[in-house]
Amino acid sequence: MSHLVLLRHGQSVWNAENRFTGWTDVDLSPVGEDEARQAGRLLREEQEAGQLDLVGVHTSLLTRAVRTATLALETMGRPWLPVRRSWRLNERHYGDLQGRNKAETAERHGLEQVQRWRRSYDEPPPPLDPSDPRSGTQDPRYRGLPASALPRSECLADVVRRVVPWFEDCLAADLAHGDVLVVAHGNSIRALAKHLKGISDEAIVDLEVPTGVPWVLRFGPDLTLEEDRFLGDPATVAALQEAVRRQAGG
Amino acid sequence: MSHLVLLRHGQSVWNAENRFTGWTDVDLSPVGEDEARQAGRLLREEQEAGQLDLVGVHTSLLTRAVRTATLALETMGRPWLPVRRSWRLNERHYGDLQGRNKAETAERHGLEQVQRWRRSYDEPPPPLDPSDPRSGTQDPRYRGLPASALPRSECLADVVRRVVPWFEDCLAADLAHGDVLVVAHGNSIRALAKHLKGISDEAIVDLEVPTGVPWVLRFGPDLTLEEDRFLGDPATVAALQEAVRRQAGG
Repeated sequence: MSHLVLLRHGQSVWNAENRFTGWTDVDLSPVGEDEARQAGRLLREEQEAGQLDLVGVHTSLLTRAVRTATLALETMGRPWLPVRRSWRLNERHYGDLQGRNKAETAERHGLEQVQRWRRSYDEPPPPLDPSDPRSGTQDPRYRGLPASALPRSECLADVVRRVVPWFEDCLAADLAHGDVLVVAHGNSIRALAKHLKGISDEAIVDLEVPTGVPWVLRFGPDLTLEEDRFLGDPATVAALQEAVRRQAGG
Repeated sequence: MSHLVLLRHGQSVWNAENRFTGWTDVDLSPVGEDEARQAGRLLREEQEAGQLDLVGVHTSLLTRAVRTATLALETMGRPWLPVRRSWRLNERHYGDLQGRNKAETAERHGLEQVQRWRRSYDEPPPPLDPSDPRSGTQDPRYRGLPASALPRSECLADVVRRVVPWFEDCLAADLAHGDVLVVAHGNSIRALAKHLKGISDEAIVDLEVPTGVPWVLRFGPDLTLEEDRFLGDPATVAALQEAVRRQAGG
């Protein structure tokens, strides 16, 4: 029996600015840092209650997930845990919308179109041009990756396609050894949850992952999912989910 | 051509208390945190000058080295770099002296004996009993390690014996891919430098590694050491080495 803990990073410095983020490497805001520490306290309680015993941690390659993991692990007293990072856990790539103001984008393309880019399963936003400075082709963190693998825009279905191989090759092997923490993003966690829980293409877009709340999935010996629950006070979790729903996307 | 950067963590919360530390997992002091950020600034300058391009990071399993790496990487803008941790980079195990006050230990065993434990190459301090709560046998960070490999006390020669296999198997392979940062401790860095620079058993005990100062070793294509230098102002480095010499050991 082992546990997978999914943790979505908290508020970033772009939240207040109402801009599409995606792969843009914005840092946590002070509120997001507090959310990470609060997640660490919940994980520490779970650990002290003998319910959890982490053996490893995974993060995306984006600073807001890396730092959420760091702060949570320091708070729970396990900063020395082995950690691995992968671009496959990155947020959904928002293509040409990245960095743009959400209200201006709605004015330009129409609210209905923007809603489809945000909430449909298989309609990616307009792609970034590879010569665009936002494309990441010059970013040293992706230099090990073939240029053909670097997304220029993604729908949620694309994120599922890149997350599942990572689950099969990296995470599954780790879960055979013990409990694992994954710190990632709204859409990469959605993609993983879709695969693990067998959620339909239609239903997955309505799944709201609250920020900073550890989501614990318990697996049986053959890696069948037995139970899942959020840590912490249920009313707080519900309020966080509602907050995420209100400002969904990006 | 690739670069190895060795970085010794800065002041820990036990420095002021004058106690032997070794494998005891004490955290950085606020001064030590500043030293880590200053190292990050020096690394960032080196990177921006095109002299350094880190592809990976290694730390020991002790919190003061883990957090030094985290703070330095955040300051240099590369928190997403892949990081690996190993007990082989831990500080020298100080055996039964760990946690004891240095002045009281000198009173009990005589100053001459304590100096030999601190500065001789091959005389380990009295070993810890495996049942001692300080022994680490109950520490989850070492649970992957056979009990027979867990040190009960070490001299510098013992540290060389555990660091060299790590250099051969982990670090050398990484250096074939690019520049690497290693964040560790006075004696694990000494041990590595002894091996890489061919320093004698007699001379190595006098090598003072300044805290928080990146030490850059440049290697040629066949991993021959071509040059080594400390980053930052030479007078500052000399002053830090002198400070380390004055409070040597522990």
